[in-house]
Amino acid sequence: MSPRPVFVVAGVGTGTGTGAATARLLAQKGWRVALVARNPDNLINLAKEINEAGGEAAGFPVHDYSYNATLSVFDAISAHKWSSGEPSEVRGALWNAGVQEVWKPFLEVSEKEIETTLQFNVAAAFGFARGAILAFKKNELDERGARGTLLFTGATASIRGNVRTSGIAAVKFAVRALSQSLAKEFGKDNIHVAHAIIDGIISTGSSDVRLDANSIAKNYVYLAEQDRSAWTWELDLRPAHEKW
Amino acid sequence: MSPRPVFVVAGVGTGTGTGAATARLLAQKGWRVALVARNPDNLINLAKEINEAGGEAAGFPVHDYSYNATLSVFDAISAHKWSSGEPSEVRGALWNAGVQEVWKPFLEVSEKEIETTLQFNVAAAFGFARGAILAFKKNELDERGARGTLLFTGATASIRGNVRTSGIAAVKFAVRALSQSLAKEFGKDNIHVAHAIIDGIISTGSSDVRLDANSIAKNYVYLAEQDRSAWTWELDLRPAHEKW
Amino acid sequence: MSPRPVFVVAGVGTGTGTGAATARLLAQKGWRVALVARNPDNLINLAKEINEAGGEAAGFPVHDYSYNATLSVFDAISAHKWSSGEPSEVRGALWNAGVQEVWKPFLEVSEKEIETTLQFNVAAAFGFARGAILAFKKNELDERGARGTLLFTGATASIRGNVRTSGIAAVKFAVRALSQSLAKEFGKDNIHVAHAIIDGIISTGSSDVRLDANSIAKNYVYLAEQDRSAWTWELDLRPAHEKW
Amino acid sequence: MSPRPVFVVAGVGTGTGTGAATARLLAQKGWRVALVARNPDNLINLAKEINEAGGEAAGFPVHDYSYNATLSVFDAISAHKWSSGEPSEVRGALWNAGVQEVWKPFLEVSEKEIETTLQFNVAAAFGFARGAILAFKKNELDERGARGTLLFTGATASIRGNVRTSGIAAVKFAVRALSQSLAKEFGKDNIHVAHAIIDGIISTGSSDVRLDANSIAKNYVYLAEQDRSAWTWELDLRPAHEKW
Repeated sequence: MSPRPVFVVAGVGTGTGTGAATARLLAQKGWRVALVARNPDNLINLAKEINEAGGEAAGFPVHDYSYNATLSVFDAISAHKWSSGEPSEVRGALWNAGVQEVWKPFLEVSEKEIETTLQFNVAAAFGFARGAILAFKKNELDERGARGTLLFTGATASIRGNVRTSGIAAVKFAVRALSQSLAKEFGKDNIHVAHAIIDGIISTGSSDVRLDANSIAKNYVYLAEQDRSAWTWELDLRPAHEKW
Repeated sequence: MSPRPVFVVAGVGTGTGTGAATARLLAQKGWRVALVARNPDNLINLAKEINEAGGEAAGFPVHDYSYNATLSVFDAISAHKWSSGEPSEVRGALWNAGVQEVWKPFLEVSEKEIETTLQFNVAAAFGFARGAILAFKKNELDERGARGTLLFTGATASIRGNVRTSGIAAVKFAVRALSQSLAKEFGKDNIHVAHAIIDGIISTGSSDVRLDANSIAKNYVYLAEQDRSAWTWELDLRPAHEKW
Repeated sequence: MSPRPVFVVAGVGTGTGTGAATARLLAQKGWRVALVARNPDNLINLAKEINEAGGEAAGFPVHDYSYNATLSVFDAISAHKWSSGEPSEVRGALWNAGVQEVWKPFLEVSEKEIETTLQFNVAAAFGFARGAILAFKKNELDERGARGTLLFTGATASIRGNVRTSGIAAVKFAVRALSQSLAKEFGKDNIHVAHAIIDGIISTGSSDVRLDANSIAKNYVYLAEQDRSAWTWELDLRPAHEKW
Repeated sequence: MSPRPVFVVAGVGTGTGTGAATARLLAQKGWRVALVARNPDNLINLAKEINEAGGEAAGFPVHDYSYNATLSVFDAISAHKWSSGEPSEVRGALWNAGVQEVWKPFLEVSEKEIETTLQFNVAAAFGFARGAILAFKKNELDERGARGTLLFTGATASIRGNVRTSGIAAVKFAVRALSQSLAKEFGKDNIHVAHAIIDGIISTGSSDVRLDANSIAKNYVYLAEQDRSAWTWELDLRPAHEKW
């Protein structure tokens, strides 16, 4: 890998979940991590933690999730001066955001909820993907033959509708469609796009019958390290004991 | 079936496609058809044609496709006085609209296009579905054991992303998710929700190697007539000679 | 349709299920029905019942289900003299057989059970499909533009493996693969191949929350009547109240 | 991992493909590898190569692929004395065999070909899976919380039928069904079952636009190393430039 490229992680939440775990692991693996979330305090805390652990992280708050916000954050990230005093290539991006997701009976879903969830979860994913793809296209091939990796966090609701899921499944299906379209459109440009279906409750504690955020993180790093002769578009991740 | 219930058909276009063909066939089968589209002239022409052929149709223009527009059109339809001088139960609805669909390379898709296509194709489908479900819930069971039938027109882009399909596939996947969620949520209320994947170019002329709008219409009527002991959520329709 | 063609129904069982219901309905619609099963007495009884009701049916027992048995039964059917004293074109075939299906924990499945279930359910389906396709290829196009229709009964186990389903899902997935391959290979020859996923317990009595064999039969007839401008490869059928 | 457990690799062919590449990589990672194929000379050569490179491998020929042959080979493997002079626990198994696969127009497929391909590819996979599961059930949990990993090599024909694929797709769908059923049935026993869809032509040379056997091998090792809080049942692998 060229020296210390940047991986953008959108959706690091309060620092206890999948996004934050992935950021920590990427930092350990030598990536500079650009943390994206809405709460600046959370970003400051997580960046500080990663930097104190010997990694390199910086926070980039977005006012809210929208096409424009998630696209333009890439400008800030591209301009950021890292420890070397210079900008760094963006070669990875994880869309792990999930805000204003709607899990409720269909007749309780309001117009505003639908429009907000579409904006935060679909339009914003399009903006994020655009920012990532544009950044990747500037890069030379790295040693695995790629210009960059764009990852999306999905869920069972990405592939199956159910009672109470009209809101969440609509946006999750849409993002999966985006990821598959991008994988096919940009594979020939040596840009890797992948989608992970996370099935099960994610533990932020110690139980081993739950999905572990650190284990999910390992899988994202694995995807980011696949060489271009064998790329995965989609995989599922669930605990051994999960019923599905 | 109770005497001459109403079937709402959204997306009758210029009168040459699937929506219009379905409206004509439903009218022949004894349904009152409520035609929904944006162009009032088209609605007037199609309603006139159906009425002159012995059917019963009325047009209900929407200013544009949005959650609120497609929901509130059901109020107008419910209040409409048909030939009998009385309102009539809404027992069927077809979401066949497809406006501002986006088929282009991902990097050419603008923010406005994404937001518009989400509004017109997803939020509006949610509004339409809400209007239909609320109307159906007022009905007694008919002789096939149902309160109503809600149909959605899908496409290959509903199940597969491809190059140039990030925009269209995102909204088509989302509507399919909606339809599956609704089928599961409202089956127990004896409301039938189905999704048809239309694969191939639809002929409005005479070629038999293309999908024929009238043939598609027959399939929608078939779905609307299934009794509740054996309901279909999804079927595909394509010409015999189509490669897939 | 050309005058009274033959529809072959394999798997009519004891006369109470889907196969028999489909045979009865096809007879009412004017088809000659060739009944295929292992028990000659059941065939005699069902044929007699259909003939007494004004239809035309004949039984063709197979010693057991195997590639050769289900293929060669088409020779007997093609040679059969119907009421007119002449052979009749075979234009439809339903593979509804399901013998020695294996639903049990994996470690309880024996070698013999696997080999038998593969022979009875997969190899025999290949033989049956060959008999049907060869018969269809001799036909001229009918008024819906087809040479023949080949239908397969599937189940949830056709699309999803689960605990205790290693045996049944293996054969059901295989038959679904066969049906999709045939649909694509022979569509250009105007031969229609379709697969129905029957999900739920089939009632042979009167409950309306269960799948009704007569309702399933209607759907098979519907598939057999689709014109070639809009053919369905796969549809699902389940009761309104089914959880899925 | 407990010291040097055994990974069984069935289908190592002539030593140039996926199975052999996986065996080599597993040996480098510290696994003892039990090589299974029909040609004893190939097994001797590959085992020798791995042993000379510092790994530990032994060959276990099967006369042909059948339920009984692939099951009983586990007895030989379990009894084998490795370098330590003692048997070793079997904790991994890869079903990579593909013999007598049938890719041809449906009407050219003979009865014998179908029966042979079902025996070699489906019945034999059941026997292999039984051998693996029975072996795994004897093991204690390892440090990733598992008793063993059972991997299956799939293909695009595992999920999609096409023209000329009736034979190959039937067996590939069946094996995928087996793998999903086993994943669900034995997950609660901490046995990991996964299925990889390999899409594209596998290069045994140097082109980077083709699937690389060594890259596939890396992915199998990755699956074998997932901890049980986040297991993958299925993933796809294809070259960056593949159209799909």
